[in-house]
Amino acid sequence: MDNDSTGRILSELRRWIASAPPGARVPSNRALMAEYGASPVTVQKAMHALASLGLVESRPGVGTFVRSVPVKPRLVDYGWQTAALGSPHSRMPVLSSTQRAVAPDAIALHSGYPARELLPERLVRTAIVRAARTDAVIARSPATGLPELQAWFATELAATAPAGVTPPTNRDVLILPGSQSGLSSIFRALVGPGQPLLIESPTYWGAILAAAQAGVTLAPIPAGPDGPDPDDLARAFAQTGARAFYAQPTYANPTGAQWPTERGLAVLEIVREHGAFLVEDDWAHDLAIDTDPRPIAAHDDDGHVISLRSLTKSVSPSLRVAALIARGPARDRILADRAAESMYVSGLLQAAALDVITQPAWRTHLRGLREQLRARRDLLIQSLREHAPTAHVERPPVGGLNLWVRLPDGTDVERVVRDCEVRGVIIAPGAEWFPAEPSGPYIRLNYSGEHPDRFPEAARVIGDVLRTHA
Amino acid sequence: MDNDSTGRILSELRRWIASAPPGARVPSNRALMAEYGASPVTVQKAMHALASLGLVESRPGVGTFVRSVPVKPRLVDYGWQTAALGSPHSRMPVLSSTQRAVAPDAIALHSGYPARELLPERLVRTAIVRAARTDAVIARSPATGLPELQAWFATELAATAPAGVTPPTNRDVLILPGSQSGLSSIFRALVGPGQPLLIESPTYWGAILAAAQAGVTLAPIPAGPDGPDPDDLARAFAQTGARAFYAQPTYANPTGAQWPTERGLAVLEIVREHGAFLVEDDWAHDLAIDTDPRPIAAHDDDGHVISLRSLTKSVSPSLRVAALIARGPARDRILADRAAESMYVSGLLQAAALDVITQPAWRTHLRGLREQLRARRDLLIQSLREHAPTAHVERPPVGGLNLWVRLPDGTDVERVVRDCEVRGVIIAPGAEWFPAEPSGPYIRLNYSGEHPDRFPEAARVIGDVLRTHA
Repeated sequence: MDNDSTGRILSELRRWIASAPPGARVPSNRALMAEYGASPVTVQKAMHALASLGLVESRPGVGTFVRSVPVKPRLVDYGWQTAALGSPHSRMPVLSSTQRAVAPDAIALHSGYPARELLPERLVRTAIVRAARTDAVIARSPATGLPELQAWFATELAATAPAGVTPPTNRDVLILPGSQSGLSSIFRALVGPGQPLLIESPTYWGAILAAAQAGVTLAPIPAGPDGPDPDDLARAFAQTGARAFYAQPTYANPTGAQWPTERGLAVLEIVREHGAFLVEDDWAHDLAIDTDPRPIAAHDDDGHVISLRSLTKSVSPSLRVAALIARGPARDRILADRAAESMYVSGLLQAAALDVITQPAWRTHLRGLREQLRARRDLLIQSLREHAPTAHVERPPVGGLNLWVRLPDGTDVERVVRDCEVRGVIIAPGAEWFPAEPSGPYIRLNYSGEHPDRFPEAARVIGDVLRTHA
Repeated sequence: MDNDSTGRILSELRRWIASAPPGARVPSNRALMAEYGASPVTVQKAMHALASLGLVESRPGVGTFVRSVPVKPRLVDYGWQTAALGSPHSRMPVLSSTQRAVAPDAIALHSGYPARELLPERLVRTAIVRAARTDAVIARSPATGLPELQAWFATELAATAPAGVTPPTNRDVLILPGSQSGLSSIFRALVGPGQPLLIESPTYWGAILAAAQAGVTLAPIPAGPDGPDPDDLARAFAQTGARAFYAQPTYANPTGAQWPTERGLAVLEIVREHGAFLVEDDWAHDLAIDTDPRPIAAHDDDGHVISLRSLTKSVSPSLRVAALIARGPARDRILADRAAESMYVSGLLQAAALDVITQPAWRTHLRGLREQLRARRDLLIQSLREHAPTAHVERPPVGGLNLWVRLPDGTDVERVVRDCEVRGVIIAPGAEWFPAEPSGPYIRLNYSGEHPDRFPEAARVIGDVLRTHA
């Protein structure tokens, strides 16, 4: 069996047979001898092995042919796995409704990803081709990331730091394969199974999912349009003994709200008093509309803020690169988790992302993106006002990609979502953004994925469905 | 503060100031008005804000300049984090010695990554450029991976399946950002904190690390050159109640051994009897030398084998793509963990990897790689025989990238490693490949990273050091 040439011919023929139609003619021994530079004996051995495996049959004087193996539809019972697996630590949904594939002609307001025309497509293609010429193609990236990319993220944060605050160093930046990985690592490394984590409510479903995976216990903090109430937060820290608070202070998903600067500083102060971490998920840094982002991390140089920033939504879902900024032992603890989890991030993705964000055209792109998001947001709000007046946007988002829409009291949200889908409009039920029970009947509408021409029609359908439910 | 234009000018100027030398001249208000299409009032507001932050100073009649902020070397005490973090679940080393950066002129036999000349560099560059022209650049990949890449991995495994065994479907294949991520997910999803996992000893340090991260309890099974003793394995399953066994049956890291077919089938039978999973880490599938790979997964259609195969070492470290094949509820449990951990893998990396492995030149590359690995392996063994006769290779590896070298009894391995490093030869201490105490004084020598011209010199140094230690 270990005869090198026979084994190789055998394995390549089996691969070919696996995809060949039954009855296909196998190359002649002579042809195989020529192709593999093999002896007649070697080739005969391989053909013999194929025949004895029942994969080919030879018709003397005619040739050798792929046997038609009758495919038995096999109904496997994996019941034995039930005992081996036991019950899961936590019930995790495999897919959020935001990631569902839907009928191609549906109006899709559920997806969290920007449409092609909002991405710097030309910049990205050029950057990849340029990166393909560099050593990033064959080299392994350091575990912490490409130094130039670390430096870029450090400089970006330093640019918003008040004088007197020591900005993070390049070493404080860890490059990740997307910010979801960062959430998982932070919750595992800094909180841990069974330990409490304070979390805004409503908030990003991916953070709720990562927390469930890490087995942490969530303590929801209600977040109004100006962020969490500082007294609520202080009380929750005191009551739970939590050492971390997860939040999206800038263009929160789903509400699109931004904490006022004073609120952010008040939260930071409370976090400091409780010897805790603020996990600042700055996911929408590049998705500003009415304001500019003001990361709270820029005000901290004592290692209280762990900040996450992703390029996935503003550069491209294919250049899956994010940065985590953390200082002190917390940084080391997170790095150890990252090393065990994935070792390093593709240098090609890092080099291409760095190329995109250091082009002058990147700033131009961001300015254009701002205007496009503004127009889309305004059109969807206007369409709802006109056609679905009972769907209420409490405060228009000042950034981000979503409208957070309150439906009339008593609305059965799941039924509204289903009825809209039947009529070709896909929307996301608000419940997925709540760490516990929803505080009211909400839906989330994403204005970045679908073509805006279809917003009025979508609003009409939502309005009709709400009227039949009233 | 939320004034859009002022904010934007302010933030861009701060970014510029962060990298500008003290004393640099800030562009004039007139220039800024032109650049941003902003009014005089807007620009004045931004300059005023910069001045009040202490970032610029204006010299009337001369201009505005970046202030030289004296950089106070700040010695931060992150002591508060010590209480917040508590002690870690498990002591995880941040870096294996195989991932250390070393002096550029050192002879590096410690690294686990193949040298540039062993990679299909031209194929990879071409594939990336081709992928850069496709929609993979801007589209989000499905959570389970690109269907064509799933199909490729399924077909590869099907090609070695005996007739009568139902091969895996495309749906059973999950695409991952490297196989390390797969190990973490498998150990978390199928074993879980505090639960036992049987593991070969010695074995891949990355698996030991992933197990520590997942908090599973390891039960080592000694693995000889023909794999684990079936009786040992059956006893360990019975004694520990374990439901999973992690192994590298093909070209194991570090030994390069391959289980004989019969041994593999015997192990599979024991796994079946105990209602357990075999986690088959087929890491070196493309790194064959004397034999062909024979995955045990090809013999299983009841969902007992979870198999992992990576392209990182044979295609390129930058096209970080691996496949996990699992069936039944186990597949769903693992997918849920992957979704929480990283959602999806860059479609660009997947498209480029698929391009490389479906080129006819890929097979040619693998044939050449086999010959290169053979020559390197043989030269390193020959060099040791000649210059370091007490460094004993128990059985030459039949595939993979490493020699597993036994040193004389009583050798202080750590001292040997240090003394070699002082003399410019970097080798890895064997202890990292043992889940518990090492069974003897071993070192691991990788023959794929360094230029073979330097093997004789390396062997001379190792021989000299061993002589001084004798």
